Amino acid sequence: MNLTAYLEQIAGELQQELACLLPDTNTDSPLTAAMRYSVFNGGKRLRPALFCSTVTALGSDYHPLLPYAAAIEMIHCYSLIHDDLPAMDNDDLRRGQPTCHIVYGEDMAILAGDALLTLAAEILSRPLADIPADRQLAAAKEIMSGAGDMVKGQALEIAAANKNINIDLLTKIYRGKTAALFQAAALGAACLTGATAKQKEELTNYCLELGLAFQITDDILDIKGDEKVVGKRVGSDLKNDKLTFVSIMGCDAAAIEAANAAKRAVASLASWGKEADILRAYPDFFVHRDH
Amino acid sequence: MNLTAYLEQIAGELQQELACLLPDTNTDSPLTAAMRYSVFNGGKRLRPALFCSTVTALGSDYHPLLPYAAAIEMIHCYSLIHDDLPAMDNDDLRRGQPTCHIVYGEDMAILAGDALLTLAAEILSRPLADIPADRQLAAAKEIMSGAGDMVKGQALEIAAANKNINIDLLTKIYRGKTAALFQAAALGAACLTGATAKQKEELTNYCLELGLAFQITDDILDIKGDEKVVGKRVGSDLKNDKLTFVSIMGCDAAAIEAANAAKRAVASLASWGKEADILRAYPDFFVHRDH
Repeated sequence: MNLTAYLEQIAGELQQELACLLPDTNTDSPLTAAMRYSVFNGGKRLRPALFCSTVTALGSDYHPLLPYAAAIEMIHCYSLIHDDLPAMDNDDLRRGQPTCHIVYGEDMAILAGDALLTLAAEILSRPLADIPADRQLAAAKEIMSGAGDMVKGQALEIAAANKNINIDLLTKIYRGKTAALFQAAALGAACLTGATAKQKEELTNYCLELGLAFQITDDILDIKGDEKVVGKRVGSDLKNDKLTFVSIMGCDAAAIEAANAAKRAVASLASWGKEADILRAYPDFFVHRDH
Repeated sequence: MNLTAYLEQIAGELQQELACLLPDTNTDSPLTAAMRYSVFNGGKRLRPALFCSTVTALGSDYHPLLPYAAAIEMIHCYSLIHDDLPAMDNDDLRRGQPTCHIVYGEDMAILAGDALLTLAAEILSRPLADIPADRQLAAAKEIMSGAGDMVKGQALEIAAANKNINIDLLTKIYRGKTAALFQAAALGAACLTGATAKQKEELTNYCLELGLAFQITDDILDIKGDEKVVGKRVGSDLKNDKLTFVSIMGCDAAAIEAANAAKRAVASLASWGKEADILRAYPDFFVHRDH
């Protein structure tokens, strides 16, 4: 399984879905422009890809469920817009482009984030063909619950800034701010396809470790990454006095933590069949990315 | 029908529901504190009351549906938190108290708004006893769609600031920023109780007029109101260069517009029975309020 090619394929399919959901018709609306600017900016679409891969791993076709994948990406994009605001991380660069508030102003950036989150929730409520309504409700609940945990993780991080925190608290923060939306994607897929409780539990463990591996790698890239490749300012964590795995234990030890989390993620799916091979490819890919 | 007593009763029931949904357990979390601060601040709970009254008007018991009423109030509260931010209306007073960002900081206020909107969407996905899942999905879709229209209305207002706008555009802005959430409440109730298409259409007209009457009265209170009674700074529209019905046509003509919209709201329900008497009482009440 070539994950790079797979991710490109999903990104292409998602592009079409997002273009239908966020049409380019209301051309004189700065809100629509700000929403589209932040959604169509070359993102890697990892969370929707994870959603699709989970549907595949559970033996179903993800294509009829692409609106849900798009909604998950919108939730991710809203969180980035609000994260970048001056009152939050105050970042002016994202994926190599000026951030939303730099281009459209803070007021429109706040509203664009609100509008993307709201539209995502609405899309989750639109009936999907051949999916029972109660499964959709369960999936929407999982996804919005994960989105809520993400906000809690961000708040926990802000409250912890400049304080002495340990690895346990930091792990809790990472579970919220990063793993929660991975989990939302995977468990949303599990609910739609009627997965068993055991499968959901294993997916939950997988996502916790995947999120940890991803976020620690993010910390390392914030120190060691090339700004042109990473596409956002490096050294942002230092600037914002954020405690990270790197600031606590150094880059080398943090890289070992990320690799161990990646191994544990794969191990969570030990009882799954060949259909889960794509899921097994993510952890290593996340740890070895350069942006 | 004494609407004041009715609203007090609903507010009491809603208080209990909201206290269950936003428990006071995580006492060291500034996010939870900021959410509770903004939700439990003596709001009039007009939108959830409208939701409950619509359920009653359609012949059902609203009590099992109170989680939906609470979710609608959370959406209203999130919009107020974000509206008050320095980058938006920059208001420091709301219902006689310092606004959320004054007390908890801008970062936590942004996140508290995000968290309330997210929690609201999650609550809409939690199964309600005796309500088919497809009705819930339809209701959630209407409510989030209205919440989306509200954001669009706010963006339209920002884009129109300092520009020459006419009554038609202003009416469109008011439909979004005020009527849309009334409509979300009424149509959410209609979907849950299985209302007919004709009933939904009449409710839509009712809410458009009710929202107009409410917002024009808001404009008048922003000029003529007593800050101590209104509970927020008066003259805020003027400060923010907002065009309003009052700034375009003066207080007296604006009051006539509000009264006419209130009459049209009541007329929209001409074919409804006695159960809709509460709904008929709102328009006049909204126009004659002093806060």
